[in-house]
Amino acid sequence: MAGLRIHSVLVTGANRGIGLGLVQHFLGMPNPPQWVFASCRAPTGQRAQELQHLTSKHRNLVIIPLEVTDPASIKAAAARVGEHLGGSGLTLLINNAGTAKGNSLDNETLEDMTQIYTTNTIGPLLMGQAFLPLLKKAAQGSPGSALSCSRAAIINMSSYAGSITDVYVWEYGEVPSYRCSKAALNMLTKCQSLRYKEDGVLCVALHPGWVQTDMGSAGPHKPPLTVDESVRGMLKVLSSLSEKDTGTFLNWEGKIIPW
Amino acid sequence: MAGLRIHSVLVTGANRGIGLGLVQHFLGMPNPPQWVFASCRAPTGQRAQELQHLTSKHRNLVIIPLEVTDPASIKAAAARVGEHLGGSGLTLLINNAGTAKGNSLDNETLEDMTQIYTTNTIGPLLMGQAFLPLLKKAAQGSPGSALSCSRAAIINMSSYAGSITDVYVWEYGEVPSYRCSKAALNMLTKCQSLRYKEDGVLCVALHPGWVQTDMGSAGPHKPPLTVDESVRGMLKVLSSLSEKDTGTFLNWEGKIIPW
Ligand SMILES: NC(=O)c1ccc[n+]([C@@H]2O[C@H](COP(=O)([O-])OP(=O)(O)OC[C@H]3O[C@@H](n4cnc5c(N)ncnc54)[C@H](OP(=O)(O)O)[C@@H]3O)[C@@H](O)[C@H]2O)c1
Ligand SMILES: NC(=O)c1ccc[n+]([C@@H]2O[C@H](COP(=O)([O-])OP(=O)(O)OC[C@H]3O[C@@H](n4cnc5c(N)ncnc54)[C@H](OP(=O)(O)O)[C@@H]3O)[C@@H](O)[C@H]2O)c1
Repeated sequence: MAGLRIHSVLVTGANRGIGLGLVQHFLGMPNPPQWVFASCRAPTGQRAQELQHLTSKHRNLVIIPLEVTDPASIKAAAARVGEHLGGSGLTLLINNAGTAKGNSLDNETLEDMTQIYTTNTIGPLLMGQAFLPLLKKAAQGSPGSALSCSRAAIINMSSYAGSITDVYVWEYGEVPSYRCSKAALNMLTKCQSLRYKEDGVLCVALHPGWVQTDMGSAGPHKPPLTVDESVRGMLKVLSSLSEKDTGTFLNWEGKIIPW
Repeated sequence: MAGLRIHSVLVTGANRGIGLGLVQHFLGMPNPPQWVFASCRAPTGQRAQELQHLTSKHRNLVIIPLEVTDPASIKAAAARVGEHLGGSGLTLLINNAGTAKGNSLDNETLEDMTQIYTTNTIGPLLMGQAFLPLLKKAAQGSPGSALSCSRAAIINMSSYAGSITDVYVWEYGEVPSYRCSKAALNMLTKCQSLRYKEDGVLCVALHPGWVQTDMGSAGPHKPPLTVDESVRGMLKVLSSLSEKDTGTFLNWEGKIIPW
């Protein structure tokens, strides 16, 4: 993490699970970001209490209301973040918010397919569009330098379950709506990397590992990784990313996952 | 095509383009199927005239009304096809209906992302569910035999544009909604291949080539392939498919495309 110097970061789905873990680690860094924007869809709700509690201890933490399936909510969040940043840009956008249902191929539905795609794939697309001006501004702050997470980056929280090549843990759950949404998110990441390269923005799809969160623990098996282990690994990976890594799909240990 | 002996086939989006070409080739085979179900969403409309015309010449051709984004329409179509087939099964389901919009990453919208995913990805999922009983019945007709298109198969019309590895013809159009939907369709195909193998159903994603149809000709460049060339190639590929090919992504010449 020594190499990671982030002026500002926004994490979606930051009220629990991996998103909350990311926020905690950013706040605890020896050289913490000037701004940590923790977005969640119900900031005053029961499930955001831990996040609310953190704001009393960290003046660089700002909670941003954000429902990632709602274009108007996304636009409002981008405007709010822009106001806080004043003239400066956003270094890091982490599209972490995600959802899943334990459906099989036989009982999958139009509604679940739509809802999960909207959250996991369309949300990150709209977030990229809305925050691009702020990310570009961050990139322009270090002109001529190579792509890196300390300059400007979009990190899409994908899943090994979205690898078409490996169809990871198929025997634990078919979950076609989830797998299709993450394969599509991987494609989106590739598209973003090609389009946003000229703007100086690095784009990567990350698999956090199988992690002890509400989502990770939904099945009968206990996930091997704690949130802490996953997040520590991912931050190390982020600190090491460079030009050659944009448009790739990596796990929390920095290993490439096949599409 | 000598190897292809199909008792019955259903093609979606059969009123124009590649779908219509497939229907014409099936009808013109030396050993044509007993049933060719040509489905389209507006059977009596202007755009289905050529298909309507064919019914007067071919008694094995049946037009089936089908809107692939509507679960009720899909269920009704499956019931109708089942009635025609009497006690026998459906050999081949070709999920060909598809849609695209020339959007860039910058002007992509929630609405287009949703609509294109619903047609290109959710449609084929629901079609697989609804027609599985008929496909299983076909497979059971040749018990113990290996997977093949003459036994029972689902063919999903994908696109090289859906290859995350190659992001084919990016410079001709970013079309993230289309690319994401086809990457997700490839994932669906992989899931279907794993799940339906035990039912004796082969599942493959096919890229038809870049073809002279309304969709293929939407941009400024003329596609290199005629519908005839594409369809002839694909039928040859279908005739050659066996157990080892289920769950793969092939082009109209039988070459494997990376995910
Ligand atoms: N845990 C694992 O093993 C694992 C493995 C691979 C990938 N992942 C990915 O990692 C990411 C985080 O997962 P997690 O395990 O931390 O999941 P989690 O514990 O279920 O938390 C999901 C987070 O996403 C938020 N969210 C869901 N839908 C949202 C929406 N429409 N708008 C805004 N926020 C929304 C939730 O907010 P609410 O509290 O308001 O619901 C919550 O903060 C996801 O993208 C997931 O797919 C997880
Ligand atoms: N042409 C190419 O170069 C190319 C390349 C790669 C992949 N493909 C794929 O090949 C397939 C066929 O493409 P094409 O070139 O023949 O396209 P096309 O000429 O535009 O025809 C599309 C067909 O799909 C039907 N369709 C669209 N939405 C539908 C829905 N919701 N319900 C039912 N039918 C629907 C259309 O019916 P209506 O007449 O009612 O609109 C039409 O019959 C598509 O899946 C496409 O993605 C084509």
